Amino acid sequence: MSIALIIPDRKLDDLQQRLALALADTPIEIWPDIRKPDEVEFAVVWKQPHGSLAALPNLKAVQCFGAGVDAILSDPTLPALPIARIVDPGLTQTMVRYLDGVVSHYRLRLDLFSSWQQQALWQPKSPRRIAHICVLGLGELGAAAAAHFAGLGYKVTGWARTAKQFDNMQCYSGAAGLVAAVAQADIVICLLPLTPATESLLDSAFFGQLKAGAIFINVARGAIVDDTALLAALASGQLQAACLDVFRQEPLPPEHPFWQHPAILVTPHVSAVTNVETVVEQIADNYRRSQRGAPLCNPVDLSRGY
Amino acid sequence: MSIALIIPDRKLDDLQQRLALALADTPIEIWPDIRKPDEVEFAVVWKQPHGSLAALPNLKAVQCFGAGVDAILSDPTLPALPIARIVDPGLTQTMVRYLDGVVSHYRLRLDLFSSWQQQALWQPKSPRRIAHICVLGLGELGAAAAAHFAGLGYKVTGWARTAKQFDNMQCYSGAAGLVAAVAQADIVICLLPLTPATESLLDSAFFGQLKAGAIFINVARGAIVDDTALLAALASGQLQAACLDVFRQEPLPPEHPFWQHPAILVTPHVSAVTNVETVVEQIADNYRRSQRGAPLCNPVDLSRGY
Repeated sequence: MSIALIIPDRKLDDLQQRLALALADTPIEIWPDIRKPDEVEFAVVWKQPHGSLAALPNLKAVQCFGAGVDAILSDPTLPALPIARIVDPGLTQTMVRYLDGVVSHYRLRLDLFSSWQQQALWQPKSPRRIAHICVLGLGELGAAAAAHFAGLGYKVTGWARTAKQFDNMQCYSGAAGLVAAVAQADIVICLLPLTPATESLLDSAFFGQLKAGAIFINVARGAIVDDTALLAALASGQLQAACLDVFRQEPLPPEHPFWQHPAILVTPHVSAVTNVETVVEQIADNYRRSQRGAPLCNPVDLSRGY
Repeated sequence: MSIALIIPDRKLDDLQQRLALALADTPIEIWPDIRKPDEVEFAVVWKQPHGSLAALPNLKAVQCFGAGVDAILSDPTLPALPIARIVDPGLTQTMVRYLDGVVSHYRLRLDLFSSWQQQALWQPKSPRRIAHICVLGLGELGAAAAAHFAGLGYKVTGWARTAKQFDNMQCYSGAAGLVAAVAQADIVICLLPLTPATESLLDSAFFGQLKAGAIFINVARGAIVDDTALLAALASGQLQAACLDVFRQEPLPPEHPFWQHPAILVTPHVSAVTNVETVVEQIADNYRRSQRGAPLCNPVDLSRGY
């Protein structure tokens, strides 16, 4: 038996070495150079080429190398196998610190001061009044972000597909709940999973429900947002600014209007990058579980899509 | 008796109304329209025109409308009277939140991502490793900033003119101590008072002692820094970036090289602006103290200059 790493466009020496160290006797092969496909029983996967998993006849389980499994599930030849995803406290902390920094960026008006600096404009302004933050998506990352901002004294509302309850924030669910959750928020943070139900969910009707002059942050998946509707909301002033870390196409194509938009901050999908060091043990554990036929840790529910 | 507000270039209606409310029977005059200079016994002052205090023959005490008294003390005709300054927990919190946001800005590389965005460059990078922050100046604001970053898990070193001790950080003092305090720091924050001893203290010798690639933040006073030395340290790579909120001349003149420097973030003296609401009670209290001959709260020690 062996493990396959199917993670295109990423240097995998480090992951391979650490996994080899954690699982002393197990060969670890790196796609596309898989010498013995018959022996692969466990695959660690991120944006796998479609068909690459179906080419492994004895595969028992799939470990997603991150929190979002939308790319894995988009493969029409995906074998019907247990899939696990990473739930990494380090990843969660990285995400929360990213969001904390971006909220401070807007609170301190660093967006405006940077822009005025280019014109040598001295225009002192006290911080933006940001009192209420809405978090869309209350999974591991969303719940942690909401708890962080509630702990700092912000009013926090949350929205999820299904009804949830947390301390320190009012939670909403369902289509009508979405309107109520965002209506008064100064900042709306998208941390939804990308599923057929959330694809283009944030459209012009959605942006029309926001408080005038709200700020939007997307750290989930680009395809949840209708790009044209986002640009229109900025043009009308419905949105004051947007920070986007994720895009329908990544890298964001050079000609995309987001790049040059004065009210958009583009960051290149850095809000939560899987840290090899902290996730190796989780992957090794799921490998051992799959070998002994035990349920995987952090399994993906295919009926929900995450 | 009456109170004079000598705060040029600021709308004072709000302060006047709030003080009038707190001190029901006391007339409050706004410079330069002081009808009865003989009756003024208490002055609230920020960057007063030289001579304006000397023109008030019965003045008993001076209340600085902020934390830094260097502008008041620069008046050669300043009467020998008790001076108090504002020590405002709101001001302290505003300053700490500014510093927290700026540290996050650099940690998340928002400086680089913003600059790359203008060139449509997609270059993912994990956060900067910022492990050690040095705070120069351990007064009210410096001590609060140091405690904040120590609480977040950063290694913090501090430096002050005189020896001090705080939990969670190593404190240095004196000229040799300055070198030791900054030598290993990833970020150096200046919160020193401006006095004859600190004027141009941060010169080329100082910047030469920093860790290569350090980041410098000045939220104290512009005249503590030798501008030419700062620019040279950025040019040599000794400094990686600088965030400057204070300048020798404010507003920063349009032709000043700081404005267009790609590694400098200029903010227009917004890191800690006195909030009228939170300081009125402190001013009213000092007025009452001066009327009954009691020592002022938060007095300035003229021998130290702060």
